[in-house]
Amino acid sequence: MFESVQKRAAVIAGGGLKVRRLVVGCRKLLSERGEAAGVSLAKITLDLYRNLDKKDQARFFATLLAEFSPDPARVLAASKAYAAQPSASTLAQLSLAAEPPRQELLRRLNRAPGGTATILRMRERLLELIDEQPGLDAVDWDFRHLLSSWFNPGFLQIVRVDWHAPAYLLEQIIVHEAVHEIRGWSDLRRRLEADRRCFAFFHPALPDEPLIFVEVALLDRMADAVLPVLDAQFSSSDTSQATTAVFYSISNCQPGLRGVSLGNFLIKNVVDVLSGEFPRLKVFCTLSPVPGFVAWLGALLKKGTFEELKTAAPALNTVAARLGVNIAKIASDPDCVARLAPLKEPLMQLCAVYLLRRPDAGELAQDPVARFHLNNGASLERINWLADTSRKGLRESLGLMVNYLYEPRAIESNHEKFVRGEFVAARRVRGSVPS
Amino acid sequence: MFESVQKRAAVIAGGGLKVRRLVVGCRKLLSERGEAAGVSLAKITLDLYRNLDKKDQARFFATLLAEFSPDPARVLAASKAYAAQPSASTLAQLSLAAEPPRQELLRRLNRAPGGTATILRMRERLLELIDEQPGLDAVDWDFRHLLSSWFNPGFLQIVRVDWHAPAYLLEQIIVHEAVHEIRGWSDLRRRLEADRRCFAFFHPALPDEPLIFVEVALLDRMADAVLPVLDAQFSSSDTSQATTAVFYSISNCQPGLRGVSLGNFLIKNVVDVLSGEFPRLKVFCTLSPVPGFVAWLGALLKKGTFEELKTAAPALNTVAARLGVNIAKIASDPDCVARLAPLKEPLMQLCAVYLLRRPDAGELAQDPVARFHLNNGASLERINWLADTSRKGLRESLGLMVNYLYEPRAIESNHEKFVRGEFVAARRVRGSVPS
Amino acid sequence: MFESVQKRAAVIAGGGLKVRRLVVGCRKLLSERGEAAGVSLAKITLDLYRNLDKKDQARFFATLLAEFSPDPARVLAASKAYAAQPSASTLAQLSLAAEPPRQELLRRLNRAPGGTATILRMRERLLELIDEQPGLDAVDWDFRHLLSSWFNPGFLQIVRVDWHAPAYLLEQIIVHEAVHEIRGWSDLRRRLEADRRCFAFFHPALPDEPLIFVEVALLDRMADAVLPVLDAQFSSSDTSQATTAVFYSISNCQPGLRGVSLGNFLIKNVVDVLSGEFPRLKVFCTLSPVPGFVAWLGALLKKGTFEELKTAAPALNTVAARLGVNIAKIASDPDCVARLAPLKEPLMQLCAVYLLRRPDAGELAQDPVARFHLNNGASLERINWLADTSRKGLRESLGLMVNYLYEPRAIESNHEKFVRGEFVAARRVRGSVPS
Amino acid sequence: MFESVQKRAAVIAGGGLKVRRLVVGCRKLLSERGEAAGVSLAKITLDLYRNLDKKDQARFFATLLAEFSPDPARVLAASKAYAAQPSASTLAQLSLAAEPPRQELLRRLNRAPGGTATILRMRERLLELIDEQPGLDAVDWDFRHLLSSWFNPGFLQIVRVDWHAPAYLLEQIIVHEAVHEIRGWSDLRRRLEADRRCFAFFHPALPDEPLIFVEVALLDRMADAVLPVLDAQFSSSDTSQATTAVFYSISNCQPGLRGVSLGNFLIKNVVDVLSGEFPRLKVFCTLSPVPGFVAWLGALLKKGTFEELKTAAPALNTVAARLGVNIAKIASDPDCVARLAPLKEPLMQLCAVYLLRRPDAGELAQDPVARFHLNNGASLERINWLADTSRKGLRESLGLMVNYLYEPRAIESNHEKFVRGEFVAARRVRGSVPS
Repeated sequence: MFESVQKRAAVIAGGGLKVRRLVVGCRKLLSERGEAAGVSLAKITLDLYRNLDKKDQARFFATLLAEFSPDPARVLAASKAYAAQPSASTLAQLSLAAEPPRQELLRRLNRAPGGTATILRMRERLLELIDEQPGLDAVDWDFRHLLSSWFNPGFLQIVRVDWHAPAYLLEQIIVHEAVHEIRGWSDLRRRLEADRRCFAFFHPALPDEPLIFVEVALLDRMADAVLPVLDAQFSSSDTSQATTAVFYSISNCQPGLRGVSLGNFLIKNVVDVLSGEFPRLKVFCTLSPVPGFVAWLGALLKKGTFEELKTAAPALNTVAARLGVNIAKIASDPDCVARLAPLKEPLMQLCAVYLLRRPDAGELAQDPVARFHLNNGASLERINWLADTSRKGLRESLGLMVNYLYEPRAIESNHEKFVRGEFVAARRVRGSVPS
Repeated sequence: MFESVQKRAAVIAGGGLKVRRLVVGCRKLLSERGEAAGVSLAKITLDLYRNLDKKDQARFFATLLAEFSPDPARVLAASKAYAAQPSASTLAQLSLAAEPPRQELLRRLNRAPGGTATILRMRERLLELIDEQPGLDAVDWDFRHLLSSWFNPGFLQIVRVDWHAPAYLLEQIIVHEAVHEIRGWSDLRRRLEADRRCFAFFHPALPDEPLIFVEVALLDRMADAVLPVLDAQFSSSDTSQATTAVFYSISNCQPGLRGVSLGNFLIKNVVDVLSGEFPRLKVFCTLSPVPGFVAWLGALLKKGTFEELKTAAPALNTVAARLGVNIAKIASDPDCVARLAPLKEPLMQLCAVYLLRRPDAGELAQDPVARFHLNNGASLERINWLADTSRKGLRESLGLMVNYLYEPRAIESNHEKFVRGEFVAARRVRGSVPS
Repeated sequence: MFESVQKRAAVIAGGGLKVRRLVVGCRKLLSERGEAAGVSLAKITLDLYRNLDKKDQARFFATLLAEFSPDPARVLAASKAYAAQPSASTLAQLSLAAEPPRQELLRRLNRAPGGTATILRMRERLLELIDEQPGLDAVDWDFRHLLSSWFNPGFLQIVRVDWHAPAYLLEQIIVHEAVHEIRGWSDLRRRLEADRRCFAFFHPALPDEPLIFVEVALLDRMADAVLPVLDAQFSSSDTSQATTAVFYSISNCQPGLRGVSLGNFLIKNVVDVLSGEFPRLKVFCTLSPVPGFVAWLGALLKKGTFEELKTAAPALNTVAARLGVNIAKIASDPDCVARLAPLKEPLMQLCAVYLLRRPDAGELAQDPVARFHLNNGASLERINWLADTSRKGLRESLGLMVNYLYEPRAIESNHEKFVRGEFVAARRVRGSVPS
Repeated sequence: MFESVQKRAAVIAGGGLKVRRLVVGCRKLLSERGEAAGVSLAKITLDLYRNLDKKDQARFFATLLAEFSPDPARVLAASKAYAAQPSASTLAQLSLAAEPPRQELLRRLNRAPGGTATILRMRERLLELIDEQPGLDAVDWDFRHLLSSWFNPGFLQIVRVDWHAPAYLLEQIIVHEAVHEIRGWSDLRRRLEADRRCFAFFHPALPDEPLIFVEVALLDRMADAVLPVLDAQFSSSDTSQATTAVFYSISNCQPGLRGVSLGNFLIKNVVDVLSGEFPRLKVFCTLSPVPGFVAWLGALLKKGTFEELKTAAPALNTVAARLGVNIAKIASDPDCVARLAPLKEPLMQLCAVYLLRRPDAGELAQDPVARFHLNNGASLERINWLADTSRKGLRESLGLMVNYLYEPRAIESNHEKFVRGEFVAARRVRGSVPS
């Protein structure tokens, strides 16, 4: 498969003078001269990349695939030597032969000032291209491998973001909030008050850019709807009675770090920080959307036969009878909430089914938010009815929201079960799934 | 070779409960449970290592070799698949199979607070063990590979160290100075005055520990002796006439970073910083010791026949006649300087020979300081007579010192020549080598 | 006069338990015990003040006047002794007798944490009361005397406010901007971009509260209207061509510092800072409102006879004929700008008359903005037609704005002339005043 | 008295061109022009002072006395007007007339960058001159008055000094330590370890210069000798058992702040800080020298008759018999400690007498250290035998040291008693004084 890509790369790269100059720079950087030139050559080479247009960037990544992959013959020879005689020297030869040269290239580019930021932008672009050119997966593998090493939690700094933070940083919080839109500075301010917390991870090489942030409400109970969490009228300056930390939003700021584990570490780090600050806190949970529910339900209803889900068929039939097949349209109905009201029971049942069923090969994949939290070792504690009646909340999940529970002592075993295909959920939720 | 080590490891590890508990921790950390446990398991595992005594540490490294190396059969299979069909997926399989699992282990250990510092201490210990157990080279390869990636210059911060620096930091400068001993705080203070500079590299994960530092004198000429550089009586608060930056000392503070390129980047970074601050600076050079000279010369003289060095034979004979064969003793002679005086010409000639000859297989390796600077792309500009008459200076190099010249425009080509075996030196130095 | 106040104070204070407790605290603080109690007693006493309601605050200030003024008999005796025999000891006695004890009281209150901030709030309240109780002027004299000493420019820190400033600080900038209202965060952001500057004075005892700030536009000419200064569409990131710094807004944030000279020092400090950063800057001027113009003109027109301003009578008659007597109403006319258009010449003439005439006893005082800048040593450089067509700009000054010029070399003599009653203005402005 | 000084000043000032230029600068600074010139004129004037030699400085201070004192006639007139009719305006006139113009001069000089530091240096010089020219007391009164207002505790910052402090700051601690000399950096380091504390006051206008600092040992009992406090062998990293904070040294760094109350506030502030950090701390005391004891005792013995101290006569006779009259010589006797041994009882008795007797007019004043702590509200808790056997300790106080106790609840009443002439001491100490 690489071969065809290689030919294509050869052709494409043939066209672009800028790309060719960049590739020459990369070769030099990997050579002995590059070692001595140190940072200056890395700077020049990065600048050549920064001047590429989008098409030339695609050509460059194709070249990274075609020219900077391991040499199969050399790897094979090294593997044979290592298999014949495992030793420090055969292993070193193997490691050198098997590691794609573009990894060393990225390490050398990273030497330049601002190198890490540019490499993140490079990967952002690379991820856009992967759909069209799946062969680039191999290039992306190396980016992700290095970025996972560099953005190791041991190198990250947790920062509390509050009203004393610099404006340029708060502006980024507003822009990157992905779950519950922040409507301007006063909405932001409410989320930074005494009974709320916002924490972000930073990397020292990107001191001005948060990587990911999480928003938390300190409450006296597990929230069952989003309004009291977000609305300013429920503000309280007294956190002494808070027993429950509700993580109500987590947002990535760096598309170039997709697939690098950050959210999991951030949540657990914040649990530690808050436990230290508020010894009375006993419950750490989320209030999360169910973004894939309506799509899944709509697809099921359209299909019309519910053979694989026989036990849920009554609920599905009820819903179909009341709302019709095109369930996605309901969110735009001004009487949406009223129309949903009589369907509370079947819909909550179906949501439990949706969240707890193992996805089959042919089905839509499991809910991404559920997958994230369950994989982190949380358990599914509760499904909440009419918990988010915003347009987005109704369109994606008919207003349902979920509390996932992070119980420090259960996290490891929950995660292990999840990996084995068993989803941990509260008895009440499990009980609502027809068997 | 690994096999015997493996057996030994099995035996040794069998003995130590603490080691076995640590190894169990490492296995768990690499498992799925470890992924979810996140930072807490990494903390616990690192603590288990910190509690080992020196013998148990040796056992642990033996286990890292025996148990956490790539599986030869799996690598071979992956190599064959990749060779048969190079694709993103076969390459990913190859990468996973060929990378020693201890690399991922170190990345996961590094997640813990203070993880990076402990990993550096681990490697410090590992380097002590390598002489006895050369098989551990394979383990060290992985440590060095990861540390080189993590201590990439793009992640380092250059810091000017002056009299405003915190005392605990200055104390470390005193301790780690390896070239010209710092005799207490007033000696240190002189090296931090207006006409001197000291710069250090820091890594954000070790904010309190300098990695390496360099000391520079701002002068109006290339220094030909160390006294005016170090002595307080030559202090000047006027740097406006300085034309020459003399790098007179560079010292590593982290034995665990041996082999990770830092000095080269630090020197070039400081050249940039000083060029910006003092536009009148035109010359960047070192004043360096020749630490291997006396050992090399002594070995030659003892051997008695100078066949490979026929052209230098007259000089060698003169020196032997005047000083005798056991040249190492001369430094302890109170009249040392007087006895050396008549030998200026032959000794400077021999020093040039020493520095510029390519080391043969059987010979002592080339001078380490020369190798460092020439490999960085500097050229050998001048050899200075009676430039360091301290006891150490006389004992190691009969008082000779060298100026290496860092000429930004020549650095790349100088380095390239060095790699090809050609040492760039000023005409005068080359001319003194008999041909 | 104090006597009647004293009686009133006695009566009033008689009513309030809280006030009496505070007064007892003040007496104790001034006693020997107070000296030793140090900070703790100051804290307690300040807290007593903070718990007073507005009426009790008024009672407390009355007591400060009645009880903590100098004793006339003691001052007179000390003055006589000093006059008879001026010596260190008679002078010390005089100083002690003449200084109102409330000054020492304020110094001792200031020892408490947060003391300075509370004293500023106290004066804020005191200034509200002065209109009703002019005797309190004597108390205010002491507040202002101490605050002038404490907020000496030597103790102030100048800080550039930009988009990296903390949000809580920027919020205060939005709130306190007094000249051209800031309409939300994006309006603020425009004023902090590369071609704009904002500087504030801070005092170390109030690290979170700006005292005063000034906004500056870096332009290639002296601005003749406010729109290009404020509007985002005129934004430019290139300041290399800037020749002119236009101070377009200066706002006080601390009512409690009224009468303490800050603006004068801030402007001159900013001139120094900008001169250092942009050597190409040659002109430092303002773009200022004329807030008293319409009120002055309206009063004149209503009066109907222009005897004192005979030379300006033609202009006044023209204006009266076209706009009528009630000139203040014109700003609410939607065709205001069109109606003003034909009156450009007489109105600019009248504005020059308004700004340059010395106020007589019976007249409205001179324009406060003109007085501020001329007293600082600036000169009146230009009057600009239709420079601020905002509602406020039209209502207060019929859209006119003024450039005052700060020419470092002329500042001292300009100020001296101003104090002698001579207003320095450009020839063109002076020429437009009919003589 | 001023008159003669004035004549002298006229004569002296006549001689110095530099002084005359400075005086002209001062006059201008006080004039209207000076107000507008702002900071620049203050800078120039301060520079003129900085260029004076010591003699010219003396001339300048004489001029400050002669020319910048209040005008007696004007003060008298203002006093009469105020006595006749006390009002805001007569009081303002009085305040203006009575305040020496040099106060406003100092406030205007202080506007310049670095002004406060220079004013402190000015006062340092002024204090040197006062002995010769007592009339300068009047000038010093104004310096002290302003400095007391500017160095109000509300403006000071308390800073913990530890091994993380910058070297230039620690160097000043070494230089200024006045009680127990710091012998180099390792001695200093011991005083900054986990079981010791050092706190300093800073003023924002002098960010690089500590004003005063105090050293504290955290112990499990009240120290009765200085050795265990200072010696490294008694170091402990465990402060969890500490019950007692022993203030063993307090040193001023700014001679220009003599008479400005700092030590009292520093000690009480540190008591608060330590109480917060170590809730187990119950006792706050000092371990203090008795610097005036030997001088007092020697003078008594030389006098030979002990009429005023009849009750102590037996003890005095015993001492005189054993040690002779010239007691000051004993410290240089190598057997000093042995010779003192049999005199423990009479010497401790005499020390109690020395510390607790009210000084009569004709006598040497009371011990300055006792006066400082008793005036702060401490009580005399214990006298310790052979507590400081350093040369200085023996020479000044025959090895005796005192614990003064700071009991927060007793401080106010202790101070009040002290002011009334009653010294609070523990029963045991009082009991040892013969009555």
